Amino acid sequence: MSSLNIVILAAGKGTRMYSDKPKVLHALAGKPLVQHVLDCAESLQPQQVCVVYGHGGDAVPQAMRRYAAQFVIQEPQLGTGHAVQQAMPHVTDGTRTMVLYGDVPLIQPSTLHQMMQAGKGLVLLTVHLENPTGYGRIVRDAQGDVLGIIEEKDASVEEREIREVNTGILLAPTQKLREWLAQLQNNNAQGEYYLTDIVAMAVQHGIPVHTVQPAHRWEVEGINSKTQLAALERAWQQVEATRLLAQGVTLADPARIDVRGKLTCGRDVEIDVGCIFEGNVTLGDRVRVGAYSVIRNATVASGTDIAPYSHIDSSEVGANCHIGPYARLRPGSKLADEVHIGNFVEVKNSEIAAKSKANHLSYIGDSTVGSRVNIGAGTITCNYDGANKFRTIIEDDAFIGSDTQLVAPVTVGKGATIGAGSTITKDTPQGGLTLSRSKQLSIAGWQRPVKKKQE
Amino acid sequence: MSSLNIVILAAGKGTRMYSDKPKVLHALAGKPLVQHVLDCAESLQPQQVCVVYGHGGDAVPQAMRRYAAQFVIQEPQLGTGHAVQQAMPHVTDGTRTMVLYGDVPLIQPSTLHQMMQAGKGLVLLTVHLENPTGYGRIVRDAQGDVLGIIEEKDASVEEREIREVNTGILLAPTQKLREWLAQLQNNNAQGEYYLTDIVAMAVQHGIPVHTVQPAHRWEVEGINSKTQLAALERAWQQVEATRLLAQGVTLADPARIDVRGKLTCGRDVEIDVGCIFEGNVTLGDRVRVGAYSVIRNATVASGTDIAPYSHIDSSEVGANCHIGPYARLRPGSKLADEVHIGNFVEVKNSEIAAKSKANHLSYIGDSTVGSRVNIGAGTITCNYDGANKFRTIIEDDAFIGSDTQLVAPVTVGKGATIGAGSTITKDTPQGGLTLSRSKQLSIAGWQRPVKKKQE
Amino acid sequence: MSSLNIVILAAGKGTRMYSDKPKVLHALAGKPLVQHVLDCAESLQPQQVCVVYGHGGDAVPQAMRRYAAQFVIQEPQLGTGHAVQQAMPHVTDGTRTMVLYGDVPLIQPSTLHQMMQAGKGLVLLTVHLENPTGYGRIVRDAQGDVLGIIEEKDASVEEREIREVNTGILLAPTQKLREWLAQLQNNNAQGEYYLTDIVAMAVQHGIPVHTVQPAHRWEVEGINSKTQLAALERAWQQVEATRLLAQGVTLADPARIDVRGKLTCGRDVEIDVGCIFEGNVTLGDRVRVGAYSVIRNATVASGTDIAPYSHIDSSEVGANCHIGPYARLRPGSKLADEVHIGNFVEVKNSEIAAKSKANHLSYIGDSTVGSRVNIGAGTITCNYDGANKFRTIIEDDAFIGSDTQLVAPVTVGKGATIGAGSTITKDTPQGGLTLSRSKQLSIAGWQRPVKKKQE
Repeated sequence: MSSLNIVILAAGKGTRMYSDKPKVLHALAGKPLVQHVLDCAESLQPQQVCVVYGHGGDAVPQAMRRYAAQFVIQEPQLGTGHAVQQAMPHVTDGTRTMVLYGDVPLIQPSTLHQMMQAGKGLVLLTVHLENPTGYGRIVRDAQGDVLGIIEEKDASVEEREIREVNTGILLAPTQKLREWLAQLQNNNAQGEYYLTDIVAMAVQHGIPVHTVQPAHRWEVEGINSKTQLAALERAWQQVEATRLLAQGVTLADPARIDVRGKLTCGRDVEIDVGCIFEGNVTLGDRVRVGAYSVIRNATVASGTDIAPYSHIDSSEVGANCHIGPYARLRPGSKLADEVHIGNFVEVKNSEIAAKSKANHLSYIGDSTVGSRVNIGAGTITCNYDGANKFRTIIEDDAFIGSDTQLVAPVTVGKGATIGAGSTITKDTPQGGLTLSRSKQLSIAGWQRPVKKKQE
Repeated sequence: MSSLNIVILAAGKGTRMYSDKPKVLHALAGKPLVQHVLDCAESLQPQQVCVVYGHGGDAVPQAMRRYAAQFVIQEPQLGTGHAVQQAMPHVTDGTRTMVLYGDVPLIQPSTLHQMMQAGKGLVLLTVHLENPTGYGRIVRDAQGDVLGIIEEKDASVEEREIREVNTGILLAPTQKLREWLAQLQNNNAQGEYYLTDIVAMAVQHGIPVHTVQPAHRWEVEGINSKTQLAALERAWQQVEATRLLAQGVTLADPARIDVRGKLTCGRDVEIDVGCIFEGNVTLGDRVRVGAYSVIRNATVASGTDIAPYSHIDSSEVGANCHIGPYARLRPGSKLADEVHIGNFVEVKNSEIAAKSKANHLSYIGDSTVGSRVNIGAGTITCNYDGANKFRTIIEDDAFIGSDTQLVAPVTVGKGATIGAGSTITKDTPQGGLTLSRSKQLSIAGWQRPVKKKQE
Repeated sequence: MSSLNIVILAAGKGTRMYSDKPKVLHALAGKPLVQHVLDCAESLQPQQVCVVYGHGGDAVPQAMRRYAAQFVIQEPQLGTGHAVQQAMPHVTDGTRTMVLYGDVPLIQPSTLHQMMQAGKGLVLLTVHLENPTGYGRIVRDAQGDVLGIIEEKDASVEEREIREVNTGILLAPTQKLREWLAQLQNNNAQGEYYLTDIVAMAVQHGIPVHTVQPAHRWEVEGINSKTQLAALERAWQQVEATRLLAQGVTLADPARIDVRGKLTCGRDVEIDVGCIFEGNVTLGDRVRVGAYSVIRNATVASGTDIAPYSHIDSSEVGANCHIGPYARLRPGSKLADEVHIGNFVEVKNSEIAAKSKANHLSYIGDSTVGSRVNIGAGTITCNYDGANKFRTIIEDDAFIGSDTQLVAPVTVGKGATIGAGSTITKDTPQGGLTLSRSKQLSIAGWQRPVKKKQE
């Protein structure tokens, strides 16, 4: 079998998106449409990937620059056939070329593999629709062989009854494709060169035309509006939820989970309503995620309990931790096992060792916290002096009294106790009590302010 | 064309609502049912609006007092015909009178305009139902002219097959309406005067009867129970979501957005799942609203990013700001451009100038904050002495150390720095460092408390 | 009528759950599947309840030990007939025995009562399915009398058209059941003893066979996978929402409420989108629950307003309180009337008397707070010294300045005022002003830190 080229058509403006961004850069499940197609294409290990872009200047090649693809501009834009023509200089004869679409994001590798195994000649991806109105119909002869594609406007009454329609995705011998493209005409109302016209040429030249159907309807849904984008987003989220359930994940409501990336779950994971997962998230065995939590690019080890409204970004959470409710782990938070991070606590770029606790109203930033440390309510690491950031080090077994400010750079020694309300600006010795505190005074004759009259 | 009167029937108790409030004061999309109808009525610029109320005492006229409407009590309540009779003294002959219903909230002006253009005579709003059981059927002759309305209980087997039913909404020449109402009989089981009986009178008198259909089924849905209220709420929210999508707004889930008022969006606005918008909310270009945010009566300028769980009420947010997660802007917050308000920060009745930041665990109330100010974690403006509220002024370029209390009235001078943990009770000079701090002491021989035995 | 025994079959592993827990211990609406069945069984006041368990060792009897049931192990597991046999030593002749299933959680007492009243003999619970594929069909004679149950694989083409299927739930005279079970054969592919085979025996012995249908399809849905668990969870939540709406509760979205236990509502209760109720929750008249609140085992008295994202657990809230947004009431919080708990405030194991307020960023733990107390922003009760917990007492009319730490055990006297930023370690006198504060100093020549170069 000859090797594969993939051409991705991604030049469209997407007028009905009402957006300043090129259509293919709008995100589905947190990833630009064309990137879904590029990921799918990459998984087939093709010889060459060629992205034909147009509207939006360099936005598409810029956004997708990490892909080993050839970016070819189509200018002016004279139809799908013309778009594929732009890619032809970059593919060699003796191979096959597959045409995908940057705005048909959910095409699956398994379907494309089926196309590759469908036989020599031209392979079309077709789909049966309840209501085929508006789509080009697949016309077949009595033997069931494809005769061509007839567009809605040209179709007879009988032909309009045909429910098998063209998706536009196809696979062709590169040499043949090149020949056919060269023969395309633009004598139609729009003055465009249509890729679909090659089907008739194949039939005419006696090249066999095979058809393959996708496993799911959503694989071939295209995006032309925010309405379609939202509908396909929900369809995909349903696919994700179904996949998680099938793996044994407990979902409180499959209609209220959003996975925008890759969510990997251990055994007996429970996810409550309304959670959002972005990027790469891994949840260990028996992890429970409370309602309305947002977790992005994080690993959570087994047995950890995350209470509602927790917001975790680019962090590592150990085993058997208690997080939240209302806990925020910002990038660079690394929690060891059995750590407790409670309500209204923000952790950023900090390592917290095993069994330490910060349960209430604290900000732990740029810190290294030892084991079994108790961080009292209202503790704040003053990591920023207005110009530079410094680290706070809290050694094992320290006890930080409530409402303490730790002015970095500063180290709280092993086993040290800090009295409530202290401002700690110098390193504190191990084991002892350190505090900064004024004497408590009472003024007996003092009169409370009284309500002033409104003038 | 003669001028228009509108009579809104709003006297019903709504027994099946199981509520102490009159039915028409229950809210749909954040607004009382009858207020939807009043807003629709107002948009037609009628000569006179007359609201017939009954149950709930003065609650309806009180709640709707800002409308230029005549409120007429119906007591006792003897049917829809009797209700309209109460309004007749307030409308003059030579006009037309339209009858609307306080519990049919989503009737649209476009549909009422169609009725007004349907011709002279009596105009009925009718609707075709899959299942017309229980509704009065529109009976027509062979020419399709309306003969009358036949109630379910009086209908023959053939008549019950009719799917066109009466919505109750109608438009009539005022003089004719007055005559017909005067002839209504209450010789029925309920002893009530039915408005629908005027249709037969019109036919009898040779007055042409026209019919108009609403563009959407939900325009004529009436509310008699919380079940119906919830169903119509969801139908309306779907209408709102569809409208936003059609304008190019990106919605992560059209089934999880609630718009209770008027949401105006610029270009490339993105709204994540579960957001709630109340009152008048305007979002500029490229604004992104994070999941589960609640925004009420606010404007947010272009490029601003709102992270999840933000709660914004009666505030103005500038361009390119970063808000949240877990940020709360209470009424009277005015943020200039590029302001950052972070997690667990509450702002109230305060102006914050460009590029200032309050990123963590702070309360900024009754304050005027300059530009480029850095407000450290745990900063609290003590704006209330138990009797009066005072303002805090923080001038440009000030740096407020963490855990500072600013006891208002107080001014922090331009470029001043406040040391962490200070209680600032007097104005601080420009440029210098101000702090209140006790000496840090360590007590080496100090012993930690030990766990007491439970007795 | 003879008295009733109930046998609950709960031995299955639930391979398709992909879980380490026995299938019947997975939760639906917050309660293990088998516990739903036990609660239903208990409501019938049976003479004996017998739970047949198997997989998961003692996990099932341990988890359900508070029920007055006999737990009988089935080992090895040789089919449903064999399972019921294990229970027979525990039931006496002269009674009737009903067979329920630990993985069919939502069977309702009303349906079982119908079975008990269906007549002497064998009573089967059957259901009509649109698509009966895979289920045993109920075969009847021309008179409509049950002849037997035919399994899918043994069914003729005509029999496969039968839509009435066996649910497995049945009621039989105990003595007869014992005889039939003794005659069961396991000469089938699986080598198992099937309970359904007793139906043919009953017919053969001339025992009348009655059938009853459940009021709702969801009553007889069984759980074999997380997909089915999620589907039945949603079906049940819809039942709960429908029930609340019918009682007059206003739900912003019936598809976005989760009731995991018992929610009791007064009149004119309003519940916004996304709320979760767990355990026993009682909401008084006119209580409003803001979006995304989570309330567990709590009572909320009339007129109280709960703003979004409030998290309430094992607490009592008085009348006309204002809670939230972002308020957390942890177990043991008892709020009297007209208390205000605001944003980013945590209350735990504390009593707060009428009209007191803690509106911002505070932690109130192990405290007794009087009436009309004002707790300033950033107040923290230091209830834990690293080893023991102590109580804080704040008497009536006290005013606690912002950012105060109250180091327990400590008492703030009646009417006392605490200055902002104080660390209070000793009891404070009534009426006066108490504070601990350092002098405010300004250092004029001080230079701000400058940004260090990155090396």
